[in-house]
Amino acid sequence: MSIDSTKILLNEDEMPRQWYNIQADLPSPMPPPLGPDGSPVGPDALSRVFPMNLIEQEVSTERWIDIPEEVLGILKIWRPSPLYRARRLEQALQTPAKIYYKNEGVSPAGSHKPNTAVPQAWYNKQFGIKHLITETGAGQWGSALAMSCKLVGIDCKVFMVRISFDQKPFRKIMMKTWGADCIASPSEQTAVGRKILAEMPDTPGSLAIAISEAIEQAVSNDDTRYALGSVLNHVMLHQTIIGLEARKQFEKAGLYPDVVIGCAGGGSNFAGISFPFLYDKIHGKNVQVIATEPEACPTLTRGPYIYDAGDVAKMTPFLPMHSLGHGFIPPAIHAGGLRYHGMAPLVSHVKELGLIDATAIGQIECYEAALLFAHTEGFISAPETSHAIAQTIREAKKAKEEGKEKVILMNWSGHGLMDLQGYDAFLSGKLHDYPLPEEFLQRSLAAVRDHPPIR
Amino acid sequence: MSIDSTKILLNEDEMPRQWYNIQADLPSPMPPPLGPDGSPVGPDALSRVFPMNLIEQEVSTERWIDIPEEVLGILKIWRPSPLYRARRLEQALQTPAKIYYKNEGVSPAGSHKPNTAVPQAWYNKQFGIKHLITETGAGQWGSALAMSCKLVGIDCKVFMVRISFDQKPFRKIMMKTWGADCIASPSEQTAVGRKILAEMPDTPGSLAIAISEAIEQAVSNDDTRYALGSVLNHVMLHQTIIGLEARKQFEKAGLYPDVVIGCAGGGSNFAGISFPFLYDKIHGKNVQVIATEPEACPTLTRGPYIYDAGDVAKMTPFLPMHSLGHGFIPPAIHAGGLRYHGMAPLVSHVKELGLIDATAIGQIECYEAALLFAHTEGFISAPETSHAIAQTIREAKKAKEEGKEKVILMNWSGHGLMDLQGYDAFLSGKLHDYPLPEEFLQRSLAAVRDHPPIR
Repeated sequence: MSIDSTKILLNEDEMPRQWYNIQADLPSPMPPPLGPDGSPVGPDALSRVFPMNLIEQEVSTERWIDIPEEVLGILKIWRPSPLYRARRLEQALQTPAKIYYKNEGVSPAGSHKPNTAVPQAWYNKQFGIKHLITETGAGQWGSALAMSCKLVGIDCKVFMVRISFDQKPFRKIMMKTWGADCIASPSEQTAVGRKILAEMPDTPGSLAIAISEAIEQAVSNDDTRYALGSVLNHVMLHQTIIGLEARKQFEKAGLYPDVVIGCAGGGSNFAGISFPFLYDKIHGKNVQVIATEPEACPTLTRGPYIYDAGDVAKMTPFLPMHSLGHGFIPPAIHAGGLRYHGMAPLVSHVKELGLIDATAIGQIECYEAALLFAHTEGFISAPETSHAIAQTIREAKKAKEEGKEKVILMNWSGHGLMDLQGYDAFLSGKLHDYPLPEEFLQRSLAAVRDHPPIR
Repeated sequence: MSIDSTKILLNEDEMPRQWYNIQADLPSPMPPPLGPDGSPVGPDALSRVFPMNLIEQEVSTERWIDIPEEVLGILKIWRPSPLYRARRLEQALQTPAKIYYKNEGVSPAGSHKPNTAVPQAWYNKQFGIKHLITETGAGQWGSALAMSCKLVGIDCKVFMVRISFDQKPFRKIMMKTWGADCIASPSEQTAVGRKILAEMPDTPGSLAIAISEAIEQAVSNDDTRYALGSVLNHVMLHQTIIGLEARKQFEKAGLYPDVVIGCAGGGSNFAGISFPFLYDKIHGKNVQVIATEPEACPTLTRGPYIYDAGDVAKMTPFLPMHSLGHGFIPPAIHAGGLRYHGMAPLVSHVKELGLIDATAIGQIECYEAALLFAHTEGFISAPETSHAIAQTIREAKKAKEEGKEKVILMNWSGHGLMDLQGYDAFLSGKLHDYPLPEEFLQRSLAAVRDHPPIR
């Protein structure tokens, strides 16, 4: 048995110098975000929440946007990330497919999240902002922003959902090690937090409450802004460095992928790996692109394409997206980063355009896939990432059945060393799947029936 | 401010194909291990504990030993590891020194330990061994061996000190994820374990007990052997791939280090980074090599060079080494991997020959150093690794005082994501230093006064 494992590396001078903005190439333009009155929301309406330089990126239709030199300097700490050939996994599957994975776990925070956290911190600092505020659930995004703010030189505060704050002390220590102020939410620091604590002193908190606290503090100070780790256009933009590097790496190997796979929660790591390949697809190239989400939170596969709010309290504008309803509360699957009711407008839009496919997979199949990956490739995957692995294995098995030498590219979005509880539950036979009952979905969608239609 | 960070990469075809055996170049030969009767122990005496092919490496004086192709194939999962220029740390220190660090945290287990775990698993399998048994304290070595046995295809059992088993559930889950059988020690599985449990049912266990259980099981079955993660000559040999790569990487950059620094507990990561440079030093090159240990466990700096046992129960032969006495119990510093009473015979020997220097540093200075590293270079370091960083910062400050453009190489032996408690204690001001009182050391050394002298 040959046990060769091959990485395709890029040197730093081969790193992409520009992000790719898919808005320049969409066959039909994006529907605009809408205000509460149903009329389009302009950039100015967001200026208390985000700095204007990032809002400009949010609405830009320029194809290529320069990556600032200082941002490149920090990204170089872990980028370009290696593209791996998963030979040992191929051998275990006895598939003729060639499986490649882009290893985004090499960043100090362990995931793809710093790819946007660094530029967000940097653009805020450029705009004169002194404090950046965000929220975090499981802690992946909060720790990425904490690290990035320290490297850029700007203060960071993270409202962390109280139950995670208590149950995941190590994520909290990571953020503190990088100098961030990590606060259990709800807190006494905001009006909304105090109100909720007065009514429910023992609440475990929720992402929706944490968002409300973060935005309340961000908009109430001139030198403070809010940062979001997914969903928005500029976040997708920053993540395209993943796919741009992968494309160069395949070029080096004289190959091009037949299938590109990413897991999808808010959509950022999926957009990051796939949008540069969608550029090729829009321009005639034959490539299949698959977003894989949890069966328990099947936004793209079962949620309608509607105008919906990004948060439960409807503080955000209405965004055009696949959504399960802003009040949807997913079951407690281990892939915390995929437990979001909506999908990035850009990812939703390319789905509507027929440019991508979507699948939904239960967490037991995902952990089986992640275990096989750990036993062959060595690396222990994040629970989110395990969804991409499960889909990759499905494709590799299909290639075997069809006798095709397909080239499969998967985004290995992060390692699972901070989220090992799910492996414990899986290995102890305590893991459950949560297929979403149709009546439960319909109940959740009832609350959005009066939203304006997408034209 | 320029914030360039530069990695020097090697491609897989530039990977070293042979390990470097410093025993070929020692100005004076190693004193032999001795049996209980004071006479030299031959290879056969170890054959129930280790497979003969590894015992041959243990006693070999061949300069270059081929790395088997299959071992190379597995090491390629994360090797060659990148050599980083720590520009942002240099800038924070305003030093004229150029600081480089070899990033061994890129392995799936997060440290340098798999560099020897993979070949140990492979040689055992080659020798027809079916089960490999080891012990682990904090869990770094146990998880590395678990992963390596799975990748090689041989069973693995790890006796984990009970208090760590209970307090560090995540290390245990890592080992189980890689398919290892992880047992709290003392256990009911061995005679020594049952005896201790009968006497002390609530004992927290110790590394000494765990070693005894592992060796008892290893020697009682023909198809079973024992594996050790440090101290022995063949472990040092396997780790030299670190320094061999670093030397090639410096060659690419047209540089050579003035100072090479590694932390030292049992000695393996220090030997790994430094022995290839000691080859140059023995052959006339001017390079300073520094081993840095905890002030609380100052083996090289304060322990005499004596014949001592590797374990508290004196089950191992007497090894010639710097030792604090086999009964020495170090205080509970966070760098669990550096809490060993002895030092690898090869490292002790090169210290005696004047080829290396040694320093001892308190853990508070080490955490200060690791925090500055996280704030500038991004990566969160293992508590063991923080000792190398602290010494590197001392050298960089000295270079500033002297106005010298020194090139410093440090082995960044692993990340700290599984050991964040120490950062919490440090950030909360709860960390203590434990300088070793002289009378405490003398009491410990009293127990070894009757050991045979080194001739």
